[in-house]
Formats: sequence, structure tokens, C-alpha cells
Amino acid sequence: MFEYKVKKQSKNSSLRTGVITTSHGEINTPVFMPVGTVGAVKTVAPWELRELGAEIILGNTYHLYLRPGEKLIKKFDGLSSFNHWNGPILTDSGGYQVFSLGAGKKTKSGENLVKISEDGVEFKSHLDGKKHYFTPEKVVDIQLAIGSDIIMPLDVCPPSLASKPEIEKAVRLSTEWLKRSKKHLDSKKLKNKPALFGIVQGGIFPDLRKYCAEEMIKLDLPGYSIGGLAVGESQAEMLKIVIQLDSILPKDKPRYLMGVGTPDDILKATKLGVDMFDCVLPTRMARHGVAYLLSDGDKFRELNLLQSNNREEKSTIDKNCQCLVCRGGFSRAYLHHLIKEKEILGIRLLTLHNLHTYINLMKRIRKSVDK
Amino acid sequence: MFEYKVKKQSKNSSLRTGVITTSHGEINTPVFMPVGTVGAVKTVAPWELRELGAEIILGNTYHLYLRPGEKLIKKFDGLSSFNHWNGPILTDSGGYQVFSLGAGKKTKSGENLVKISEDGVEFKSHLDGKKHYFTPEKVVDIQLAIGSDIIMPLDVCPPSLASKPEIEKAVRLSTEWLKRSKKHLDSKKLKNKPALFGIVQGGIFPDLRKYCAEEMIKLDLPGYSIGGLAVGESQAEMLKIVIQLDSILPKDKPRYLMGVGTPDDILKATKLGVDMFDCVLPTRMARHGVAYLLSDGDKFRELNLLQSNNREEKSTIDKNCQCLVCRGGFSRAYLHHLIKEKEILGIRLLTLHNLHTYINLMKRIRKSVDK
Repeated sequence: MFEYKVKKQSKNSSLRTGVITTSHGEINTPVFMPVGTVGAVKTVAPWELRELGAEIILGNTYHLYLRPGEKLIKKFDGLSSFNHWNGPILTDSGGYQVFSLGAGKKTKSGENLVKISEDGVEFKSHLDGKKHYFTPEKVVDIQLAIGSDIIMPLDVCPPSLASKPEIEKAVRLSTEWLKRSKKHLDSKKLKNKPALFGIVQGGIFPDLRKYCAEEMIKLDLPGYSIGGLAVGESQAEMLKIVIQLDSILPKDKPRYLMGVGTPDDILKATKLGVDMFDCVLPTRMARHGVAYLLSDGDKFRELNLLQSNNREEKSTIDKNCQCLVCRGGFSRAYLHHLIKEKEILGIRLLTLHNLHTYINLMKRIRKSVDK
Repeated sequence: MFEYKVKKQSKNSSLRTGVITTSHGEINTPVFMPVGTVGAVKTVAPWELRELGAEIILGNTYHLYLRPGEKLIKKFDGLSSFNHWNGPILTDSGGYQVFSLGAGKKTKSGENLVKISEDGVEFKSHLDGKKHYFTPEKVVDIQLAIGSDIIMPLDVCPPSLASKPEIEKAVRLSTEWLKRSKKHLDSKKLKNKPALFGIVQGGIFPDLRKYCAEEMIKLDLPGYSIGGLAVGESQAEMLKIVIQLDSILPKDKPRYLMGVGTPDDILKATKLGVDMFDCVLPTRMARHGVAYLLSDGDKFRELNLLQSNNREEKSTIDKNCQCLVCRGGFSRAYLHHLIKEKEILGIRLLTLHNLHTYINLMKRIRKSVDK
């Protein structure tokens, strides 16, 4: 099941709060979805995710298909049971990974690693180089086996510096594939049907974005993703497209800005009517020793704990933060030491802090509307 | 402060329960002490250690001296505050690390990495090759700065295959250094004086062990460690020395079998009157994908979760285990997947299980006496 209701619309901007209901639970929007590529949010246990207040996590279809394979996951009643998260899950389609891990790259014999046809896409596993073939229908089937609550259609993700004709082709093919995905999903008799979102492509070209969005809206989908952003363009370029799509996409459907972003990106995009976000930054930056903290009011800054000025610093990451790490009084000096020693505990503590910061940001945003 | 009281003596063996009281808290013996080399038990947060029922953890003087340095730790009121464990801490003397990381190894120019004199030992940091010098007095001072509750004297740890004359020399020097350590500690006026244990050396030679133990007992120390075991000898050889020392060491002082061991080693050594154990096995084996589980009764076996027969296995590691991972229902298949993907969460979950197994073994042993 899938239901979305706007709870309250801000009077000052397109910001709104809402509730998504799935068979695995409710999700309050705007929401940040921690990324669990291979079925685990890096370093974080499911009970910690729940304590952090996460309401939905992401899985990556490409990775889960390759290992452990969707057949195995189905035997365990879906990813949410397999990994004991026991809550709502969204999976991407694998399109982004297929293209980002292989597009433009060639084998030693000069063969393209990724071959797109009208029917689907052939690619080589980044694990062992074996050939695989994705069609829109197959990707829906994989996500059904994974048991996701929200699924994405196979799409063509051109590189960030692609020419307009390339992006135009990607838009056309992604729209065709979305239609096939929907048709395939509609043909299934299922007790719990996941929600298939459309992914609006079109790079930074407003005419292509408009065309793509309008074509997809015709399909009356339960939600709309904005793809092909956060791939190297400036924040201003990204937000320009988000502003445009805010005026085109239906107000009664959730909008998901894929792969975005920094706390500042998210704060700004929620004011432009975006409801859902996912990003590897809080977990990845933790692995690099970086914590996010509020500097003043709504401004976030990055604190690099590896820097030597933290060596003797007794203060916590953020004196106003209520996460386990800051509230627990762990000093920057101890975190500096752990990160320097490459101790996993250091990465864990920074990950907990960063995810808390992201999830807490969403709570504050929702509260600013619902107050 | 340091106090040890025998609680109950078993009638069937030398097994006994006891309580050690330190200024950081009480420790019920026999006890397993998780190893936190650089100030963190690998992958485990301090609140998790408390939940697991750990009552004391280890720190390594050698590592902490090199990074972050004992001066920094002192500024944070000792390791137990710095790392937020807030409980009792035992530190080794660094002797073992100095010798195991450098003994017998030579620099490119043919120089010995470790140079022993009557006064102390010169060694090179494994981090940057810089020269350092340890004396018995300096090592006491470092451990005072670290703020340990139980400290070890600098000792000479010959390699496992050393000749009897080499071990004889090590015994003589270790005994001298222990006397200097005690004298140095006794000269300090401190509110909270840590307990200095003697470390009985002597390899697998009963005459050397006897001599060493008797010399050290003359110093009337608060506790006695058994060093130089678990370095390659058989379990039978190790237990033979433990049996011998059980008849020599005073009954009213705790005995600490350094670096031991497997659950089976520990089970057997407690019956020979050993009260304290530390070992990297539960954390290290977790990083290699191995879990310890009870197979029947008191028999433990190793379960390698990387093995492919776990790929689709729905059962937990150990159906009788009450750890977060087993009680939580995490399947062997999911753990297999995480370990295979090198996901930190996999190492974490196995570490939690293994530490629970070790700590729970000690609880069961204590219960068998106190019942």
C-alpha cells in the first residue's frame, strides 16, 4: 500500500509537511532517507536507526541484485526482514549505478562497458566483470523480490557533462521505459503493491525537464523523483530546476530529489516543495573524519576532526546537539584520536552524529510548518 | 585504591569467585577483560560495553604512549574519562609490544630494532621508526598518567622459541625491573594509587617459573600476572605452568593469565585458580568473520560465517545465545552477506556476539561456584 497526504502547507514557500503510509509504516515528510547500499546503512545497526528517528532507508537495486541476489532476499521475506530494519524501504532502479560505474568506460579490447538499446541496458558487474542485462521489466521484478515499498523505474542517466542531444535521448528512453515499468507492475496481482515513482530527467535544460515531467505526469504516478541532479552542477543550477519542477509537478504527490545533498541543499530544496531526500554524505563524510554541525541559526558547516587543532580540544562536536555522541560528552580530541588511529569506533560515532544532524534537520523543518 | 576478596572457593577445583574493588568500580572475578589497544575496544562503544556486562577493559601502554601520548590522556583526567568508558582500566606495560613488534628484527643497516640493557630498553616506534627508551620507572609514570587502576611492570618478553639461557636472563631482568617499578611507585604520594602486579616469566621451564614467582611473592604485591604464555606453546604446556603456579602463588591475591585465550583455555584456567583474562580473539576473530558458539554443554566451537554453507541459513549464530544479535534474530545468511561485503556492521555484530559469549562464559563460571 502507498498513500500520501499533505499535512500542512507553509504560507511563505512551497514547503509542506506530509505523511506517507506504507505497509511497513508511516513516513513523515520532508524526510531524509539514510542510504543502505548493500542492505546496511554503513556502520549503523537497525536498532540505532530507529533510535535516530529514521523512518525509511534506501537500498541499491544494482548492488543487491549482484549480491546477495534478489532471490535470496525474497526467501527472507524481503530486505526489511533480511536486514532487520523492519521499516519502509525505497530502492533505486540501478540505472544510476549501471551508468556511473560503467558509462564511457571501455574494456581492454575497446568495447563499451555499458551498451544501451531500446530494449534495455547491458553492463558488466563491477565485482567480477560478468555481463548482465537490465530491462525496465526485470528491474521492477528485482525490486518486487526485494520487497521495497517505493520503487524506481530503470532510467538512462547520462554523464553530468553530456550534450543536449544525449540528454534528450535519455529523456525519451527513460520515459518509454517508465511506461513499460508501469505496465509491467500493473499487470501483477499483488497483495502489497509498491509505489512506482517516475524519475524526471533532462539535465539542466528547462525545456527537456518540462517535456519529461509532463509526459510522466500523464501516467498519474504515486510520486515523482527528480533525477540527474547533484552530479556536478552548481547549487544554483540545481535549485533552478527544482523551482521549475515545483510549478509543474502535482502538489498532491510526494517529490523526491535523488542523491541530494548537503544540509544546506536540503534546507533550500524543502522550501521548493521537495519531500524526500537521500544522500551518502552523512555516512561517507564520517568515514573521512568530517562532522556536520550547525554554526549559527540555519547555517551548517563541516568540521574536519582529523585537523590537528582538534588534538587537545575538550569540547564536543556541537554543544547544542542531542545525539548520543555530543550528549554523551565525547570530546573532539578523542574523536580526532580515533579517526587518526583508523578505529572503526571513530567512524561509527561520527556517522551517528551526522545522521542525527540530518534527521534532526528534517524534524526542525517539519516543526517550522506544523507549529 | 585496590582490594581483592575471595568470595567463594569451589570444593572441586582451584576455581574461586572474588571481587576486586577499584576507585573506578567493582570487578567480579573470574573476569574477562576486553582489549582496547588504543583506547577503544575495536568497533564497540562504551555504552555497549556496559550493556554487555564488561567490568574492566584493557589499554596498551605502548600504543597509548605513542599516540595520543600519556600527557594528553592525563589532561583528560585519564583514559577512563578520555574514552568515556568510565570504569576500571588495566594497562599492560608495553614490554610485550616492544619485544613482539621489534625483537630479533634488524634495520637495513643491520642494527637491532630493540636494544636491552640493565637499565631499560630502546626500541623504534612501529609508526614512524623513531627511537624511544623505556625504563621500569618511565613505564610506571606513563601508566600513572593514563590513570589505570591496575598497572604492569616493564618486563622482558623473550620470543616463544627462546633458549633456556635467554629466558633465564629475561626472568632475572624482569624481577630486577619489578623491584625498581615497585620502589618508584611506592615513592609517589598519590590519592589514588594503582595496583602494581608482578609478571611471572619463565617460559615453559618449571624451575624458572618457580624461581621467578618466589622472588616476586617476596614483594607482597596486590596481584600476580602470568606472562610469556599463549605465545605458541600447546594448551597442555600452558596449563602445566598454570597448575604449577596455582600451588605457588598466594591464594589471597588475584591471578591474571595474560593474553589468554580461547573460551576453552579460559574455562580450564579458571579451574586452576586464574581470576583474570584478556584476549584479542573475540574482537579479532569477528573481523575475520568468525563467531564463537557453544556446541554442547561446555564445548565451544568456531563458526566461520564466510563459509558458503551460511549463504541461505536462516538460523541465528547460536539459538541459546541472548546477545543483541542472536536474540534480535539476525540470520547467519545476513551476517554472511555483510562479512562478504566487508560491511563494518558485520564486524560489529560478530564482535558484540563474541564479547557477549566471553562475558557470559565468565558469568556462568562464577554462577557455578556461587550457586
